[in-house]
Amino acid sequence: MINISFQSKRVANVSFDSGKDSNLLSFAQMRSLIKVANDLKSNNELSAVTLTGNIKKNFSFGFDLRDKELKKLNNSNQSVKRDYFLIGKEMCDAWESLPFLTICVINGWCVGGGLALAVSLDLRVASSSSKFYVPEIERGFNMSWGSIPRLNALVGPAKTKRLVLLAEQLNSFTAHSWGLIDYYFDSNALMESAMELCNKASKMPRLPFVLTKESINNHSNILNKIGSYADQDGFALAYSELENNLY
Amino acid sequence: MINISFQSKRVANVSFDSGKDSNLLSFAQMRSLIKVANDLKSNNELSAVTLTGNIKKNFSFGFDLRDKELKKLNNSNQSVKRDYFLIGKEMCDAWESLPFLTICVINGWCVGGGLALAVSLDLRVASSSSKFYVPEIERGFNMSWGSIPRLNALVGPAKTKRLVLLAEQLNSFTAHSWGLIDYYFDSNALMESAMELCNKASKMPRLPFVLTKESINNHSNILNKIGSYADQDGFALAYSELENNLY
Amino acid sequence: MINISFQSKRVANVSFDSGKDSNLLSFAQMRSLIKVANDLKSNNELSAVTLTGNIKKNFSFGFDLRDKELKKLNNSNQSVKRDYFLIGKEMCDAWESLPFLTICVINGWCVGGGLALAVSLDLRVASSSSKFYVPEIERGFNMSWGSIPRLNALVGPAKTKRLVLLAEQLNSFTAHSWGLIDYYFDSNALMESAMELCNKASKMPRLPFVLTKESINNHSNILNKIGSYADQDGFALAYSELENNLY
Amino acid sequence: MINISFQSKRVANVSFDSGKDSNLLSFAQMRSLIKVANDLKSNNELSAVTLTGNIKKNFSFGFDLRDKELKKLNNSNQSVKRDYFLIGKEMCDAWESLPFLTICVINGWCVGGGLALAVSLDLRVASSSSKFYVPEIERGFNMSWGSIPRLNALVGPAKTKRLVLLAEQLNSFTAHSWGLIDYYFDSNALMESAMELCNKASKMPRLPFVLTKESINNHSNILNKIGSYADQDGFALAYSELENNLY
Amino acid sequence: MINISFQSKRVANVSFDSGKDSNLLSFAQMRSLIKVANDLKSNNELSAVTLTGNIKKNFSFGFDLRDKELKKLNNSNQSVKRDYFLIGKEMCDAWESLPFLTICVINGWCVGGGLALAVSLDLRVASSSSKFYVPEIERGFNMSWGSIPRLNALVGPAKTKRLVLLAEQLNSFTAHSWGLIDYYFDSNALMESAMELCNKASKMPRLPFVLTKESINNHSNILNKIGSYADQDGFALAYSELENNLY
Amino acid sequence: MINISFQSKRVANVSFDSGKDSNLLSFAQMRSLIKVANDLKSNNELSAVTLTGNIKKNFSFGFDLRDKELKKLNNSNQSVKRDYFLIGKEMCDAWESLPFLTICVINGWCVGGGLALAVSLDLRVASSSSKFYVPEIERGFNMSWGSIPRLNALVGPAKTKRLVLLAEQLNSFTAHSWGLIDYYFDSNALMESAMELCNKASKMPRLPFVLTKESINNHSNILNKIGSYADQDGFALAYSELENNLY
Repeated sequence: MINISFQSKRVANVSFDSGKDSNLLSFAQMRSLIKVANDLKSNNELSAVTLTGNIKKNFSFGFDLRDKELKKLNNSNQSVKRDYFLIGKEMCDAWESLPFLTICVINGWCVGGGLALAVSLDLRVASSSSKFYVPEIERGFNMSWGSIPRLNALVGPAKTKRLVLLAEQLNSFTAHSWGLIDYYFDSNALMESAMELCNKASKMPRLPFVLTKESINNHSNILNKIGSYADQDGFALAYSELENNLY
Repeated sequence: MINISFQSKRVANVSFDSGKDSNLLSFAQMRSLIKVANDLKSNNELSAVTLTGNIKKNFSFGFDLRDKELKKLNNSNQSVKRDYFLIGKEMCDAWESLPFLTICVINGWCVGGGLALAVSLDLRVASSSSKFYVPEIERGFNMSWGSIPRLNALVGPAKTKRLVLLAEQLNSFTAHSWGLIDYYFDSNALMESAMELCNKASKMPRLPFVLTKESINNHSNILNKIGSYADQDGFALAYSELENNLY
Repeated sequence: MINISFQSKRVANVSFDSGKDSNLLSFAQMRSLIKVANDLKSNNELSAVTLTGNIKKNFSFGFDLRDKELKKLNNSNQSVKRDYFLIGKEMCDAWESLPFLTICVINGWCVGGGLALAVSLDLRVASSSSKFYVPEIERGFNMSWGSIPRLNALVGPAKTKRLVLLAEQLNSFTAHSWGLIDYYFDSNALMESAMELCNKASKMPRLPFVLTKESINNHSNILNKIGSYADQDGFALAYSELENNLY
Repeated sequence: MINISFQSKRVANVSFDSGKDSNLLSFAQMRSLIKVANDLKSNNELSAVTLTGNIKKNFSFGFDLRDKELKKLNNSNQSVKRDYFLIGKEMCDAWESLPFLTICVINGWCVGGGLALAVSLDLRVASSSSKFYVPEIERGFNMSWGSIPRLNALVGPAKTKRLVLLAEQLNSFTAHSWGLIDYYFDSNALMESAMELCNKASKMPRLPFVLTKESINNHSNILNKIGSYADQDGFALAYSELENNLY
Repeated sequence: MINISFQSKRVANVSFDSGKDSNLLSFAQMRSLIKVANDLKSNNELSAVTLTGNIKKNFSFGFDLRDKELKKLNNSNQSVKRDYFLIGKEMCDAWESLPFLTICVINGWCVGGGLALAVSLDLRVASSSSKFYVPEIERGFNMSWGSIPRLNALVGPAKTKRLVLLAEQLNSFTAHSWGLIDYYFDSNALMESAMELCNKASKMPRLPFVLTKESINNHSNILNKIGSYADQDGFALAYSELENNLY
Repeated sequence: MINISFQSKRVANVSFDSGKDSNLLSFAQMRSLIKVANDLKSNNELSAVTLTGNIKKNFSFGFDLRDKELKKLNNSNQSVKRDYFLIGKEMCDAWESLPFLTICVINGWCVGGGLALAVSLDLRVASSSSKFYVPEIERGFNMSWGSIPRLNALVGPAKTKRLVLLAEQLNSFTAHSWGLIDYYFDSNALMESAMELCNKASKMPRLPFVLTKESINNHSNILNKIGSYADQDGFALAYSELENNLY
C-alpha cells in the first residue's frame, strides 16, 4: 500500500495508495505511514521527501469511515476507541517532526484527514485542478488530528472558519491565494516541479537546515499541543453520537 | 435601538441603529449589544447570526465621544471611569464567545470601535463601497477593547501598524486582500449573500460546529487576554489628557 | 559609516554605508547601529525614523564573513565568540524596541542579515527592483539574530521555509504579495514615499502612538525570545564547522 | 439554597447549602452560584466576599451525580449534555473573574467539584480539621471545570498528580504545606479570621486593587483556557461510558 | 550614591545608599543603577555580583514618592510622565538580564520597589531580622516594574495576592518558607555567606553558566513582558488620581 | 542492561544497571531506555511503571562522558554529533509521554543526566540517604535534555539556579522540602512504598487517568519545547570546547 523510492541517497518519494480512486486513509494505512516516517527519520543522509497519494486520481478523501477496524470498535469501550482515534494525530505528528524537507504533492481531491496530513508537511505543491474540502462537520465530526492549529498558522482564523466551519471547497487558485498551498502546476509538470524543490534542498548542508526547520516549526506550532491534545475526545464524542443514530 | 429578527429558528439578524448616519456606539448602545449577545448565547437552536449597523448608511463610526454618559464621567474618579471603559471590551468579548456562526455585515464606514466590534465576529461581509478606518491615535486615543490582538491575528503586525499607527483608510478591495474582511459584494446583494452563509451554517450539526469554533478561537486568541487586559488603562490615561486639554 | 540627518525635530533619516556596493554589516557597523538606536530612543520628540543602506546600490548583503574582527576570533574560545555572535541580535532588538515609527527603505539587494535587520523595523518600503534573499543555509549557517520568529509573524511558516530553507530569491512584487514588504515604488519615488509615511506619523500624538506600538509588538513577538534566545549557539556551532573545514 | 449577607457595604458573605451534610453541587445550585457572582460583580462598592458551604458540616462533596436534572439528560444528545457539563466551568470562571478579594472558607470535607470551586477564589481559609480529596478518577471521571491548570498553578505538576491521579486525601496541615490552602484555624476562629482578611481588603483603594488582581490572575491563568477548554468533552466521554455500564 | 568594589576580577559588590535610613529609590538613583548594570554587563570576566542597600539600616523602602523630579512632573503631560514611570522597569530589566550570578543581599526592610528590584536578581540572601512588605496598594498604587510576574514565578498566585493585595508583612523565616528569599543568616554572617556563593560561582566556566542562566530566565519569564508591559499605565492612572486629591 | 519485570498485568518494574556502582548512562543504555518506553507505551493494560537504577548502590551518576561511542564521535562533524546529543532528550521525552503512572525510585546518588531522567517521570520516591547533584556546569556543560523547564516547573527559577548554576548538593530531606522529590523512605521500605503507589494507580479506570495525566503534563510543559529545543546545541558547543582543551 505504501511505496518508497529513492531518487538518490538524499531524495525519496513516498506514495500511499489504497487501490481505489478515493484513496481513503484506513487505520492500517495510517500505521504504515507512521512507520515509514519513523524509518526515514533515522536516515541522516536524506534531504527531502515527497509524499503523494493516488497520483492518477486523488491525493485522498481522508479518514475511512467504513474501515472494518473502525466498525469492529463499535463494541469497544471509549478507552480503546480513544487509542485508535489518536492514530491520525500520531501520523500527522510523525510527518511534521521529520528533520528534512517534506513536500506534499497533491492531485485531485485533498479532503478532510487528507488535508490534515498535507498541512503537517513543510510545503504543499498541487496540480492546477486540485480541490480542497473539509466536510468533517457536515458529516458530524470535528476536524481533529491537531489540524486546527496548523490550518490557523497557514491561513489565519477567519479562513480556517470558512474552510472548516462552512466547508467551503477551494480550487488550487484560491488555496494558493490563501496560503494553504505553496505552488500549483499543470499536472504534467507536478512531480518534476516538486523534484526541483527537493534537488534544491539536497544541496543544503544538513546542520543548519535541521536547526532552522526545528526553529520554524517550534515557532509556528508552540501552542498547538496544549490546544489540540484533546481534539480526539471531541471526535470520540461525536462518533458515539453517530454510532447511536446512524450506523 | 437594537432590532432582532429571526429568519428561522436557526438564523437571526441583529441590527443596531442610533438613528443617525454616524451610528455611533454610546454606552447605552453597547450595553444593549452585550445583553443581546448574552441572550442569544443561551439559545441552543441558533446556528448563525448576522450583525448589521445602519444598513442604509454606515456600519458605525465607532465609540461616541460625545455620549452624555461619558461627559458626566468627567467628575468621576478613575476607578469609576475604568469600569465604563471596560464596556467596549466586554461587548467585543460577548460577541466573540458566541457558539454559533457570527457574521458582521458591513456597509458604508466601519470606523474605530465599529471595526473593533467587527473583528470580534467570525466573518466580515462588506459592500463593495465600504471603508475601513481607525482614527483613534489621530484623535489622541489608543485602539483598545482587545482589538489589537484580533487585528494582529487577521492581518499580521505590519498591516496592523499601517491601519492603527498610520490610520490608513482602506476600501473593500484592499481590506479583502489584507484578510481584514472575507467577502465583498454589491450592496444590493449584501444581505442575501450573508444569508447564504447563514443558511449553510444552519445545516451543520451543532456538536462538532461548537467544538471546532471554540478550538479555532482558542488557538488564535490565546494570548489576547494577557496582552490586552490593560488596554483600557492606556485609554483612560489618554482620555485624562484630553479632558484636561481639549474639552 | 553611519549618517543621521534630521528632516525636522520629529523625523530623522539614518543611513549606513560601508563604502562598498555590498554594504556588508561588520561588527563595527553593527555596534554603531546599536549606538544610534539607543541614542535615538531617548529623544522623545521623534515620531519617525527611516533606515537606509547604500542608497545608490544595495540595502545590504548581510553579515560580513570576511570581517577582520571575525577572523581574529578564530583563536578565541566559544564563550568569547558567543558574545560576538550576540551583536546581531542586539542590533535587531535595539531597532525593534524604538518607540516611534521605524521604516526600512530598501533598494537593490536585501540579503541575509540585512533582511534580519529590515524585519526588525515596523514597515519595509522597497524599490520596484529590489531583491530579497537568505543564503545563510547555503553557506552553512542558520538564520539567527531572532529573525525566524519575525519572519514567521510576517509571512507564516510555509513561506518562511521557502525563503530560509530553500533560499528562494524574491523580487519586490512577490515580497509584497507575501507581506514581507509593505510598499514598493519606483526608485526615484522611494525616499519621497517613505517621507510621506514619516510625515503622517509626525502628526500623531505621542502617548497613544507609543502605547499602541508596544502593544502590537508584544502581541506579535511574545514567544520570540524564548524561541530564539539560543539561535546564536546554532550559529556558533555551524561556524566552528566552517572554521575547521573551509577557512 | 444560597444566602448572601452584607457585613458592611464593602464586605459580603455568600453561603450555599443543599440542606444535607454532603452539600453536593446540583445544576440548580451551580446556576445560583453563577447568578450570585454576576450580581456581585457589578457592585463596585464591594471589597471582599467570603464563600462558605454548609458551615456546620462540610464545604461540599462536589458535583451531585444523582442530580435529577443529570438523570434526565441520559436520553439527550451529546450536544445538549455538553451544554450542561459546561455549567461547572462557567461557575468557576464567574467566581474567578470577580474584581474584589474572594475568600473560600472551608470546613469539613472539600471534595472534587467543591475543590474545583475553592481553587477559583483568591484565597482558601480552612478549619484545622478539614479534608481535601479528589475522587473523580476513582469514580470514572476526569477532574474538569478548568481545575487542572488552577491546581497546577498552586501546587505544581507532581502534587497535582498525587491529588488527582492518585486521589491522595490531604488534611489541612498538608494542604497548607503544599500551598493548596493559605491559612488554617480552629473551627471556632474560622469565620472571624476570614473576616479579618476581608476587613483588611476593605481598606484598600479600589483602582490599584482591581488592576493588580487582574494582573496576577492573568499571569497565572494565561494558558488555562487553551489547555482546558475541552475538558468537559473528556468528562462527557467518561460519563457516556458510565451511563452505558453503571446507571 | 552608588559604590562598586571588586573582590577579585570575577566578583564585585554594588551598594546603593541615599544617605538616609529609608534608602529610598529616587529617579537619579535608579538611573545610576541602570548605568552600573549596563557597565557590568560588558565585563566578561565577572562571575558574580552582590547588590546591597544601606547595609547598616535597610535594603530600601522603595520608590521615593517625594523625589523632587517626581514633583516637577506634576505639570507635565502623561507622555512625559510615562517615560519616567518606565525607569523602574528599565532598572529591574537591566539587573535581570545580567549574564553572571546576581545576589541581592538584604538587611532591614525591603519594601515595595525595593522588593521589585530584589526579585529581579537571581538569588536573595537576607538577614534573620529582615522584613518584606508591599504597601503599594495601601498607598494607592499598583505594584509595577514588571514585579507581578516575577513574584508569581517565585511564590505562586495565592501568596502573591497575600503579599501585594493584602500587604502582608513577612519576616525572613516566612519569606524563606514561601520561596521569596533563598537563605537567611545572622546579620554578622550575611556578607560572608553571600560571598561564599559568589566564590562558588566564580569557579564555574563562563560558557555553560551563561547559556543556562539565560535558559532558566527565559523559561520563568516568558510571558512576563506581554503581561506587564502596560503596568506603568496603571501606575500613571493611579498617580494622576493621587495628584488630584492628595498632594 | 535493562530488566523489565511485571508484578501483574497492570504494574511493571524497569531497572537499568551498567554493572558498575556509578551506573552511568551510555548511549547504548539510553537507546535501550527509549526502546523500553516505546514498547511499554503500546501496552494498554499497564497502569503504573517504576524505574530504578542500580538498586544496591546509586540511581545514576548521569551521562557517561567516557562512553566509547562518544569518544569515537570526536572526529565526526557537528551534524552527526548533534544527532547523538539528542538521544538524552529523546529518552526523557519518551518516558514523559507514557500514558500510565511513572515512578522514579531513587537510591544513592541521582546526578546530572540521572536527575534529568528522574524529573521526566510523574513522581520521585527516594531513600532517606539519597543525594541530588547537578555538576554539569562545573564540568563545562549546560544541563540539557529539556531538563531546565522540568526543574523550573517543580522547584521554580531560584531553586533551579541553586541546583544547576551553583551545583548545590541536596539530601532527600531538602529535595523533598523543595518539591524535587515527592516522598522519601528508609531504603528497606523504598520499593514496597513505591509499589503501594502503583497498586493505587492500578485501581484507577484507564480513560479518565490518561485524559488527566495528559492535561497536567500539557499544562506544566507547554513552553518547554520551544524553550529547550536548542539546548543540545549549547551542549555541542561546550563539548567542542572541551574536546579542544581537555581530552
